[in-house]
Amino acid sequence: MPAKYKYSAAFQGEKGAFSHAAALKLLGPRTLLVPCGSFRDVFNSLRSDAATHAVIPIENTLHGSIHENYDFLLEYDFPILGETSVRISHHLIAMPGVPFSRVRRAYSHPVAINQCRKFFENHRDIDAVPFYDTAGSVKMLREKNPPEAAAIASQVAAEIYGGKIIRRNIEDYRQNFTRFFLLSKQIRPVKTAAGNWKTSLVFSTANVPGALFRAMACFALRDLNLTKIESRPLRGRPWEYLFYVDLLGNREDQAVQRALAHLGEIAPLVKILGSYRPTL
Amino acid sequence: MPAKYKYSAAFQGEKGAFSHAAALKLLGPRTLLVPCGSFRDVFNSLRSDAATHAVIPIENTLHGSIHENYDFLLEYDFPILGETSVRISHHLIAMPGVPFSRVRRAYSHPVAINQCRKFFENHRDIDAVPFYDTAGSVKMLREKNPPEAAAIASQVAAEIYGGKIIRRNIEDYRQNFTRFFLLSKQIRPVKTAAGNWKTSLVFSTANVPGALFRAMACFALRDLNLTKIESRPLRGRPWEYLFYVDLLGNREDQAVQRALAHLGEIAPLVKILGSYRPTL
Repeated sequence: MPAKYKYSAAFQGEKGAFSHAAALKLLGPRTLLVPCGSFRDVFNSLRSDAATHAVIPIENTLHGSIHENYDFLLEYDFPILGETSVRISHHLIAMPGVPFSRVRRAYSHPVAINQCRKFFENHRDIDAVPFYDTAGSVKMLREKNPPEAAAIASQVAAEIYGGKIIRRNIEDYRQNFTRFFLLSKQIRPVKTAAGNWKTSLVFSTANVPGALFRAMACFALRDLNLTKIESRPLRGRPWEYLFYVDLLGNREDQAVQRALAHLGEIAPLVKILGSYRPTL
Repeated sequence: MPAKYKYSAAFQGEKGAFSHAAALKLLGPRTLLVPCGSFRDVFNSLRSDAATHAVIPIENTLHGSIHENYDFLLEYDFPILGETSVRISHHLIAMPGVPFSRVRRAYSHPVAINQCRKFFENHRDIDAVPFYDTAGSVKMLREKNPPEAAAIASQVAAEIYGGKIIRRNIEDYRQNFTRFFLLSKQIRPVKTAAGNWKTSLVFSTANVPGALFRAMACFALRDLNLTKIESRPLRGRPWEYLFYVDLLGNREDQAVQRALAHLGEIAPLVKILGSYRPTL
């Protein structure tokens, strides 16, 4: 890694993706970005030391939890070191010299296009053209410079590929946030962390009545507050579930340790994913 | 509606989408399909009587709950009448006369392309081309018949648009299921229903310690089993949450009524989304 970088961060997508913005927020500007094609590639980059850190999306306010990444957290066993939230803002971006009035096509990922439906309803002379990736569509503009074209992507993507934002915040819903986890092989404090300690864990319950209620009692009886609980059915094993829980507190706190020991008496699987402080 | 149809079902996507398959499974073959551009359009089609029923995806085993549709369930107030799960199987589909050996491009939605990564790694002479919609990519093949082209979509899409499946089940993960809800203005029994009664509800908790635990006690103290629980933070209102719960039982059952009355003492919002039996 060149000396000007302190960290390297693997993430899924092209440079300029929202995960890229999350990586900079979590690790600061002296971070070498390592774009990966898939979430599995991100985890493999950390395993093979191709990156010192990994940044993965874990849930979105519109689209829910990304179970795929919870599966990888269980499979790869890298601790969560930090978390942050990034507002998903879509901007219309063109190459310098292309004014809004000349744009007839807007390239982007279909999910982003779908989040900008009102913009396209109000600008019927602009066609939406599906593309692999939001940031990749800006990169393509720079490389191929197609006429009358723009892209829909993040501010970071505009900056990286020399695009100009010609219409800002064209998304339908402003309440669109994605929460990211920061992972690393080694547990070192994250300098940008500012919020209260949280601990994330996964546990399973046996197929007995009231199993979840008893599991919840482990936390409630120690006055531990949960900030997330989510059940996930185990396919092919009816009435057995995985639960994702985030609680306020560090895994070293006595109340947390007692709650986890108690939970271990009840739950066939208890797996701590990490204790971390959010970067606000 | 022509006499040969008994029902009409609004759904998001093109004919041949997985929601289309879910609609046929829930309502039977005498169903007129009403494709819509967005989830909001689906709800509006039901409101304006452009369709007798609506079919919406609510969660997926890889991608989690679709909060957007929970928001619309709260906003539009149509009861859930039924549910079913559809396995997301991706097939490589070509027009008749195009053998696998001639295919050099495969069109599909980027999410589907991403779920078939191993196929593309094993067939490097086939390029993935992003398209709006899985089923729409088969429709495009039929209309434009581009050379050396195939599409990735469902079996229903192949049947509707006269495509031939030339490689079956090219998805990486077999455990990819989407759960759908059936909605209607009127509560009439669903003939295909076969499983046990379930009731779905949404409630909020106040910002007091142990609020969720007390809410759970309402169900546990009446021996009611939950099949889903999920928290969703309320943006801009720290420590306040919405909870999605599915429980086994009908809203008319005495134990369920008592649990809901008890929950009403604790939770600022309790909203029953419906009681229904799954179509297996």
